[in-house]
Amino acid sequence: VLHRSIDTEVYRTRLEQLQANLRDRGWQAALIMQPRDLYYYAGTAQPANLWVPDEADPVLFTRRVHKLTQEATWIERTVSAGGFGEMSRALADLELSLSPGAVLGVEQDVLPYRLVEGLKKNLEGVKLENLSPIVLQQRLVKDDEELARIRKAVDLWEKGHEAIMETLAVGVAEYEVAAAMECAARRGGGDGMVWPRRWDSYLPAGGIVASGPNAWVVSGEAMTVTGVGLSQALPWGPSSRRLEAGDLVVVDFSLSYQGYHCDMTRTYCVGEPNQEQRDLWERLLELHLQVVDRVRPGVTGEELYFVAEGLAEDMGLLDNFMGVGSERGSYIGHSIGLEVDEWPVLGAGYREPLPAGAVITIEPKFMVPGQGAVMVEDDIVVTPSGHEVMSTLERELFVP
Amino acid sequence: VLHRSIDTEVYRTRLEQLQANLRDRGWQAALIMQPRDLYYYAGTAQPANLWVPDEADPVLFTRRVHKLTQEATWIERTVSAGGFGEMSRALADLELSLSPGAVLGVEQDVLPYRLVEGLKKNLEGVKLENLSPIVLQQRLVKDDEELARIRKAVDLWEKGHEAIMETLAVGVAEYEVAAAMECAARRGGGDGMVWPRRWDSYLPAGGIVASGPNAWVVSGEAMTVTGVGLSQALPWGPSSRRLEAGDLVVVDFSLSYQGYHCDMTRTYCVGEPNQEQRDLWERLLELHLQVVDRVRPGVTGEELYFVAEGLAEDMGLLDNFMGVGSERGSYIGHSIGLEVDEWPVLGAGYREPLPAGAVITIEPKFMVPGQGAVMVEDDIVVTPSGHEVMSTLERELFVP
Repeated sequence: VLHRSIDTEVYRTRLEQLQANLRDRGWQAALIMQPRDLYYYAGTAQPANLWVPDEADPVLFTRRVHKLTQEATWIERTVSAGGFGEMSRALADLELSLSPGAVLGVEQDVLPYRLVEGLKKNLEGVKLENLSPIVLQQRLVKDDEELARIRKAVDLWEKGHEAIMETLAVGVAEYEVAAAMECAARRGGGDGMVWPRRWDSYLPAGGIVASGPNAWVVSGEAMTVTGVGLSQALPWGPSSRRLEAGDLVVVDFSLSYQGYHCDMTRTYCVGEPNQEQRDLWERLLELHLQVVDRVRPGVTGEELYFVAEGLAEDMGLLDNFMGVGSERGSYIGHSIGLEVDEWPVLGAGYREPLPAGAVITIEPKFMVPGQGAVMVEDDIVVTPSGHEVMSTLERELFVP
Repeated sequence: VLHRSIDTEVYRTRLEQLQANLRDRGWQAALIMQPRDLYYYAGTAQPANLWVPDEADPVLFTRRVHKLTQEATWIERTVSAGGFGEMSRALADLELSLSPGAVLGVEQDVLPYRLVEGLKKNLEGVKLENLSPIVLQQRLVKDDEELARIRKAVDLWEKGHEAIMETLAVGVAEYEVAAAMECAARRGGGDGMVWPRRWDSYLPAGGIVASGPNAWVVSGEAMTVTGVGLSQALPWGPSSRRLEAGDLVVVDFSLSYQGYHCDMTRTYCVGEPNQEQRDLWERLLELHLQVVDRVRPGVTGEELYFVAEGLAEDMGLLDNFMGVGSERGSYIGHSIGLEVDEWPVLGAGYREPLPAGAVITIEPKFMVPGQGAVMVEDDIVVTPSGHEVMSTLERELFVP
């Protein structure tokens, strides 16, 4: 009945790397509770607490269904423990209790305040540090199985594109365009949802459709083409606006396959584009290809952004690049994987060299009030010798 | 371009009630940051911090797009403040700073640990308490506009049901059944996502499809019919199992319309059900109707659960009620609204009388290993004189 996807050695290597990172920092243990991180290290997103000592073997404390979790994980020691009190007593029994003053890494960016306060009460004298930078740095580099799933997600996007080409027309609402993409992806075996890292980030089924004047509005958390949404309950993403002849339509969707995301964008035109629209698209594509061409091991996110910004300036489109006027983002892409908004954001201030195995998006856009927006986004894996574009869909200003 | 849905008086009344609750507890202010709570009080889910003093007028600190947020909210005082430092200085300028020892309510169940720690650094000497019980108690009672949106969500479910009746057949995969529901709801104007309150709760597009042997497995966080999912990355919800003749298929979906959720379940049979399946369904329906009949102002969740449990016991089906064997939940439903898993859960230990205006689900199920599962779930509003069933879809063991 259940699906196991466990190559024990892959997981063991991940865990040993985490332990090495703990030892480097002089931390005594890590506690992993967030479902995406759990899936990465334990091989299942079942509710559990993964306790990773700096040296000894890990223990998976199951919060709910014990037997199913035991069957799904490669971790050999599993203990049923619904709360932190039980977990703490079990750690004592296993002689894994931390001494006062010991450092425990926990995912402070995603665990709720109350949950961590509850943990503290059960681990008196232990010092908590934020584990997430270590986890996200490790997750940045993908292995072959992870790449294969991202490629499957890319395939879903292509199916969605075909459905959009059949759907997009004058009078169709933005949310109906979104539905075409979402349904094709779901029928193709997609997860039907996306996972953000940010606590307050969400998107309807992972996607944005923004047409005409909706495409030069910046709404919500992200500085990008966001759309305006169906209501103030979700004031970004596709709206009920009906497409008009001559509209530029930006379709920016993340899709997930067995937990791994692609994140791609293409721009469509309702009917034949005029010369201005063609020119805008051509300049965007030129900028895009030049930035993509720079992707190789050792390049920094900041370098990629500054190259893009310089090109936009040369084109006289700086004020319309990555936003409009004062509402512009100083980034050009981000990492993707188990989350759609993985660390790092590739932009000003990110000066770490990108390693081979990183999967990033490059997503330039021009947003021109009165005219519309054009955007393109591709998924790219950094290879030892340069890069490989994972998204296979052609890049053009599509006219259905 | 943007959608405003602001009846200022509705929001003002909500805010005044919150302030009265703060004064009752002797708290000096509340800070609201979670998008669902923000939407409830400020009228928009744009990223912002809503500062509510116990007596003075509220201030909305916009974290990102200032102008759009200003246009969308009824709150008169809006200030752009990207971080807590800026917010703290602006509070001082407005003479709204809290004195040392003052109590501030924040949503401790949903805000990340790091975020709250950052807040503390900028509000030295202030004591934090958990605001969420106050907010969720207030949100329990719905007004007419909220009820209207839940009814729209119910309409989406009916559209989904029609699509399922056309789709469900031998050889169709569970995820294809889910796609039928999801696509119909999205094309009908649904939000395309659902919002849970729990930090680690999520469902593909809000739904479960569980057929045959998948329907007596309990997986993930919830003690219910959960399904087993497409992979260990999301080991609940619809799977790739293909339906077989004679299968019982439980379809449990939450759908959202402009931020408000319905949550309904119907059971389908692939081909004509046998006598055993019919009997199981008939007993479930009898139990369901008897529990629904008890819903009125003043009834407690515990009473409703114990009535249901007693009936299951009388039917000789206690071990198959709300789970299987040792993995059974002691609840019979929950509140719905801006979140699909709103407080309270109606079960053992919940002894607060339900007020008129509460919208709850009643969701009994029998899970019988070797045979399958039957489940039904309706959405019900407590009225001054009793209750009204909001879900309009007939209750039968559907045979497409």
